[in-house]
Amino acid sequence: MRIAETQIQEQNSLLINDHKKSFEQLAEKLDKKNVDISLILERLKDFQIAIPSWALGQGGTRFGRFSVGGEPANLEQKIEDIGLLHTLNASSGSISLHIPWDIPDDAEKIKSLADSLNIKFDAVNSNTFQDQPGQELSYKFGSLSHTDPAVRKQAINHNIEVIRYGELLGSKSITVWLADGASFPGQQNFRKAYQCTLGSLEEIYQALPEGWRVFVEYKPFEPAFYSTVINDWGTSFLLASKLGDKAYTLVDLGHHLPNANIEQIVAILMLQGKLGGFHFNDSKYADDDLTVGSIKPYQLFLIFNELVEGMHYSDSKPELAWMIDASHNVKDPLEDLLQSVEAVKLAYARALIIDREKLWQCQEENDVVMVQELLQDAFRTDVRPLLAEARLQNGAVIDPVGAFRSLKVRDRLIEERGAGSAATGL
Amino acid sequence: MRIAETQIQEQNSLLINDHKKSFEQLAEKLDKKNVDISLILERLKDFQIAIPSWALGQGGTRFGRFSVGGEPANLEQKIEDIGLLHTLNASSGSISLHIPWDIPDDAEKIKSLADSLNIKFDAVNSNTFQDQPGQELSYKFGSLSHTDPAVRKQAINHNIEVIRYGELLGSKSITVWLADGASFPGQQNFRKAYQCTLGSLEEIYQALPEGWRVFVEYKPFEPAFYSTVINDWGTSFLLASKLGDKAYTLVDLGHHLPNANIEQIVAILMLQGKLGGFHFNDSKYADDDLTVGSIKPYQLFLIFNELVEGMHYSDSKPELAWMIDASHNVKDPLEDLLQSVEAVKLAYARALIIDREKLWQCQEENDVVMVQELLQDAFRTDVRPLLAEARLQNGAVIDPVGAFRSLKVRDRLIEERGAGSAATGL
Amino acid sequence: MRIAETQIQEQNSLLINDHKKSFEQLAEKLDKKNVDISLILERLKDFQIAIPSWALGQGGTRFGRFSVGGEPANLEQKIEDIGLLHTLNASSGSISLHIPWDIPDDAEKIKSLADSLNIKFDAVNSNTFQDQPGQELSYKFGSLSHTDPAVRKQAINHNIEVIRYGELLGSKSITVWLADGASFPGQQNFRKAYQCTLGSLEEIYQALPEGWRVFVEYKPFEPAFYSTVINDWGTSFLLASKLGDKAYTLVDLGHHLPNANIEQIVAILMLQGKLGGFHFNDSKYADDDLTVGSIKPYQLFLIFNELVEGMHYSDSKPELAWMIDASHNVKDPLEDLLQSVEAVKLAYARALIIDREKLWQCQEENDVVMVQELLQDAFRTDVRPLLAEARLQNGAVIDPVGAFRSLKVRDRLIEERGAGSAATGL
Amino acid sequence: MRIAETQIQEQNSLLINDHKKSFEQLAEKLDKKNVDISLILERLKDFQIAIPSWALGQGGTRFGRFSVGGEPANLEQKIEDIGLLHTLNASSGSISLHIPWDIPDDAEKIKSLADSLNIKFDAVNSNTFQDQPGQELSYKFGSLSHTDPAVRKQAINHNIEVIRYGELLGSKSITVWLADGASFPGQQNFRKAYQCTLGSLEEIYQALPEGWRVFVEYKPFEPAFYSTVINDWGTSFLLASKLGDKAYTLVDLGHHLPNANIEQIVAILMLQGKLGGFHFNDSKYADDDLTVGSIKPYQLFLIFNELVEGMHYSDSKPELAWMIDASHNVKDPLEDLLQSVEAVKLAYARALIIDREKLWQCQEENDVVMVQELLQDAFRTDVRPLLAEARLQNGAVIDPVGAFRSLKVRDRLIEERGAGSAATGL
Repeated sequence: MRIAETQIQEQNSLLINDHKKSFEQLAEKLDKKNVDISLILERLKDFQIAIPSWALGQGGTRFGRFSVGGEPANLEQKIEDIGLLHTLNASSGSISLHIPWDIPDDAEKIKSLADSLNIKFDAVNSNTFQDQPGQELSYKFGSLSHTDPAVRKQAINHNIEVIRYGELLGSKSITVWLADGASFPGQQNFRKAYQCTLGSLEEIYQALPEGWRVFVEYKPFEPAFYSTVINDWGTSFLLASKLGDKAYTLVDLGHHLPNANIEQIVAILMLQGKLGGFHFNDSKYADDDLTVGSIKPYQLFLIFNELVEGMHYSDSKPELAWMIDASHNVKDPLEDLLQSVEAVKLAYARALIIDREKLWQCQEENDVVMVQELLQDAFRTDVRPLLAEARLQNGAVIDPVGAFRSLKVRDRLIEERGAGSAATGL
Repeated sequence: MRIAETQIQEQNSLLINDHKKSFEQLAEKLDKKNVDISLILERLKDFQIAIPSWALGQGGTRFGRFSVGGEPANLEQKIEDIGLLHTLNASSGSISLHIPWDIPDDAEKIKSLADSLNIKFDAVNSNTFQDQPGQELSYKFGSLSHTDPAVRKQAINHNIEVIRYGELLGSKSITVWLADGASFPGQQNFRKAYQCTLGSLEEIYQALPEGWRVFVEYKPFEPAFYSTVINDWGTSFLLASKLGDKAYTLVDLGHHLPNANIEQIVAILMLQGKLGGFHFNDSKYADDDLTVGSIKPYQLFLIFNELVEGMHYSDSKPELAWMIDASHNVKDPLEDLLQSVEAVKLAYARALIIDREKLWQCQEENDVVMVQELLQDAFRTDVRPLLAEARLQNGAVIDPVGAFRSLKVRDRLIEERGAGSAATGL
Repeated sequence: MRIAETQIQEQNSLLINDHKKSFEQLAEKLDKKNVDISLILERLKDFQIAIPSWALGQGGTRFGRFSVGGEPANLEQKIEDIGLLHTLNASSGSISLHIPWDIPDDAEKIKSLADSLNIKFDAVNSNTFQDQPGQELSYKFGSLSHTDPAVRKQAINHNIEVIRYGELLGSKSITVWLADGASFPGQQNFRKAYQCTLGSLEEIYQALPEGWRVFVEYKPFEPAFYSTVINDWGTSFLLASKLGDKAYTLVDLGHHLPNANIEQIVAILMLQGKLGGFHFNDSKYADDDLTVGSIKPYQLFLIFNELVEGMHYSDSKPELAWMIDASHNVKDPLEDLLQSVEAVKLAYARALIIDREKLWQCQEENDVVMVQELLQDAFRTDVRPLLAEARLQNGAVIDPVGAFRSLKVRDRLIEERGAGSAATGL
Repeated sequence: MRIAETQIQEQNSLLINDHKKSFEQLAEKLDKKNVDISLILERLKDFQIAIPSWALGQGGTRFGRFSVGGEPANLEQKIEDIGLLHTLNASSGSISLHIPWDIPDDAEKIKSLADSLNIKFDAVNSNTFQDQPGQELSYKFGSLSHTDPAVRKQAINHNIEVIRYGELLGSKSITVWLADGASFPGQQNFRKAYQCTLGSLEEIYQALPEGWRVFVEYKPFEPAFYSTVINDWGTSFLLASKLGDKAYTLVDLGHHLPNANIEQIVAILMLQGKLGGFHFNDSKYADDDLTVGSIKPYQLFLIFNELVEGMHYSDSKPELAWMIDASHNVKDPLEDLLQSVEAVKLAYARALIIDREKLWQCQEENDVVMVQELLQDAFRTDVRPLLAEARLQNGAVIDPVGAFRSLKVRDRLIEERGAGSAATGL
């Protein structure tokens, strides 16, 4: 299904007056604080967050999975789903593919479908954490870090194949999330596992086409429960440094030990020129993969405070890849994604309205109380009208979740695809 | 020093126009959502949070302490400091005393000083985590849980003495934070320590005057680093249940293991009729005792979501004790307290504007997406004008931290008391 | 397959001399410390740990599963697998069934098979965390805690059905692990979810046959990622207390927040007469379900230190249910179980040799250094010869893992059942 | 006081027969496994662990401190205390000084005292986490990372002064534990704080004398409760890499987030040639500074498993600094230190008896079960006779804690120094 422009207008017509009023009131307040609203609107309008192809179906845990119905059964339908999101929020203009779940049979056809929905192809993702039917060697005991060079070679080749698919579609980067690790002390020799991984990554790095980048993700545990080869930002940074200028660290918000200060990691990585991008989600306990901003919205804001400083107030202009990476176990995946994108943009907008000159001055003077006043003032300000205005100016809806419901999108998807239609993926 | 009414008016005169405008805009929005603004204003105006006498000086860690100057050197000055806070925010109308740091020499004089500042005496606090000069037996290895009955007796008598001081001043409750525990496996016999503690608490309970309550605090670690006798809400609840109807569990937000769901604990304790009160602070790692709302404001909001439900929408009307319990290591303690009280009230106000009927309906229907929309709508709304209006109606200032600075309170305190004046306490 | 007595003897003949020597050396040392070795041997010989029917196949995570081959495909084969373990270690003499994965078609036949292998039927386990094919109502949003009474009724009836199957086979208890909870703030109303759960459990409790007990398990998260209805020991204890004398709390070692002091929970539950049993496993991060003792063997020893005190040195003689509850993702499940049972017994044996009178005396005197000497002396003593001797006296093998390999058990199982034979379960 | 050689012999005479028997039994067993016992004994005899000068008095927390009596009141007495330890265990042959607590008035006299006790001077430690009386600028808001260059200069100069004192005494390294950080979001600008710190460290680095090394410690929190400038191994490694070949990362076992895999950090640091040394202690919750091995002895063993591999089985031969860094709040500090040193050596000895060739082979073959058997076999073996034998060969006692008590060392120290004698330090 597609949402027609007239439907968009219909949805907005009911809310436009209230929105305009709220926006003007907010604009007046921000104006008094010398906030450049039009600049912020431009930044919000430009901000695009990729949707991973595996996030469009109902997710699950090792204990089970409960389907939502109408899930996209193939790559075309996945792109259509993202098209729906992008039509509603004008911020989901790219897709992140996963190979082998999303191998395009006819790349040109896929590209033109995506073009028609104004969707680009973001980073491609490899999978060496599962064995595929017919696969020669098993990844049970690792892939890029495996003790057996033949298994490593197979995994390297898979990654290179993923790059090739990405090239066909216009991607410019590959994300390597390496699930390799050990569930028991001694299972892996830490040194050898690190060295094998570095060697494997070097081969993948050599295969990067012109203009491509590789993102090295880190994660402390799961599916391995004692150690992970690339377990923290330090290890990812070390590997990316050894690989070269085209290698970067990718931060997934759920991939940290309890209480980690993620915003500090982000700041230091940017300072070293090695931050590559984000996988957004939220979590309370582990890699819970919950809706962005549903648990710790203030942490997200603090992360964007660092990002804004790094992106807009420093000499280095990091080119960052943004993606939602959540698992939708109890919510409609599309509604969940709309909420996640909104939460990311909210954090961005709040960080953009901080009076940064004054913040720096207070930091310089160690005026801790006033620093907190400044940050909290931005966070406590209701910036939702800014987001709505940016959407409006981009031709999308004022209230994405409201429109999704009002247009009965899920019902129509179930009608089209069936209640039993299930997405590939986790 | 005291702040004169004319100073209050002067402060407000600069902000009143902007405030009125913001308040009206907010009121209009809330009115459309059928929020009863006058009821909320009444609740905010009535809401009083006790300030502990030991929070008025600069705090420190085992590694050191850096003074702020002008700290209150005696009980009178502590009450004066709280008077300053209460004059500014009209929400700090009570003090929580700590014995032996705050033994009143002349109770009547102290009471009339407090009366003159409209300050009441909240829960009194005992101290068996330190040895006082001249103390007969040491608490090195415990107090109410000690293996030696003589030490237990001394600690019981101290608690009863604290109650007696509280009676003199008009307190109606005692908070027992028992630091007893073990730093090494086997150091304490868990069963005996529990039983001795229960026995000791029973003696204290017997000594409670008519109308008094006892709050049993819990904490997982520090100063004991392996186990604490009353380590979690379950143990506190167990003890309070065995003690009787006048015993309650007290929740300190910093006294939980990583990732604990505090709002659930609060809900279950209220449902059992055993929630006694709160020690507010915030933390990222351990019992960090940071400014309320400075780290996890959304968690605080979720806690108040439960409190509002328990206080205003259930048959049981829990009478709760509210106190800030933070350590001010790098901020001016008074500014810090103003920020903390504001954060508590902000969370309360946000929880009050939730459309509860609709929330219940969505919960009933398991409409998880809409539940989140409701909660986040309340949290994202800028309710600061509500707080300012409540203060204004109570004769206090629109912007407490701003006024504190504008009136140069700290400078004047240092002038009066000296840069070297240090508060007793931690 | 079965292992013949002659094979056992053959295995032992190679090790018997070394064993006898080691055992005598250990016995001499323990004798000097007045340890009653024959009593300890009797206790070790009597100690039986149930094997859950779902632990006999290769486990997995949400990211995938890698099979080991020769997994038991039905209940008969599962019982045979446990028979193999019990033949080797003489400590795995019972099975814990899971319904609906293990519904016995012919209960009498199953019982006589189990009898022939000297295996008893331990607690039965219900499953309301997944939807089964053809199930009328979904557990997506809960079961015993569901907002809809019809779903609760279905879940209650399932639990009662599980009890009926257990009766047929001679079980005497049911374990309720309730996966119900919320993945997002507000999704569940904490109070209503608690009350519905209590109501549902009361109905199940009413259906308990004479002599039966119900174990209420707790877990902080997973599969729900924000809150769990029965999230900690306090909630489980509260429910068990309200249910009555036949309800107990069950402790799974992996179901705690980071850094929790599990041994203290165990001690307090025993003191209250409410400890029902254990699910043994080990973990570093979350509910990792690793081999018992593979990560924190000293914690396991400290837990047994409490258990020994509660079981053998107190008036209450708790009747405890013991079960391994691990997931075997990278090890052969049977070898893993042999290692787990060994680790449990090792912890038990070490706790049994503690000089308890002296420990109590040092605790009484707060001689912390000497307490540690006593505990560490027991932990550092190599008690493996005690375990081997107990096995020998029970007709089992000196070295279970060694014998398993030497007898090529897995190869033979794959031969019999096929490399593709996969167990039902997680 | 000093312990005479005759006293040593007297102590040993009571235990020598039992020891010899135990040692022979162990030697026989290890011999069968082809363990080179004499090589291990040499390594154990050579192994020296520094004692920090601040660990000789009773430690405390922000809540209080309870003295033990007879604490060393000056540097001479501190050296004497370490002399006592070294006489008893022959493994505490060096002291780590802290400036300004231990400024030597007469370096030559101090050196000759230390010589007479066979004690060397290990790394010196600077202190910029406290303000000293008369100090010009305050470290309240940082030292090496301070926004004010004058404060940074003062802190740099202090560190250089510490190096100069170290030179006088024969030290060859300085450990920088930088307490700088922020207690609130935004307080510090992460980028500027990092850059200032790097600049400051570079100046200190320039001042290193020939043959000296600098150790950069990391710690996630405390005394700062939101962020620490050098918060994890990644940041420390980054700084050490930028500084140069004389800069190394120092690992304190208590300075990690919950659940961190420390042994992996150690392995990767060694592989990069950047591991400088250790501060040994143990912890359950945070930086608890408990006796080494009292909480997680298996983790300590796994760390030594990596260390043995790095030190004895790799080309790089890291020169590592070893120190106990614990706080003795409830134990006699000297007894506590004896227990700590014993625990470190126990872990080392266990790691030394691992059959490493076989371990590597099992790792290569991903035989996870057998890897665990190998590690646990080493850990479960009672290697205490090896440690006693090493002490005996070094002229020390078989049972250090027992001898300490039997010789009534504490009583004699209290007699000599008084019950009120208190050590400088934490």
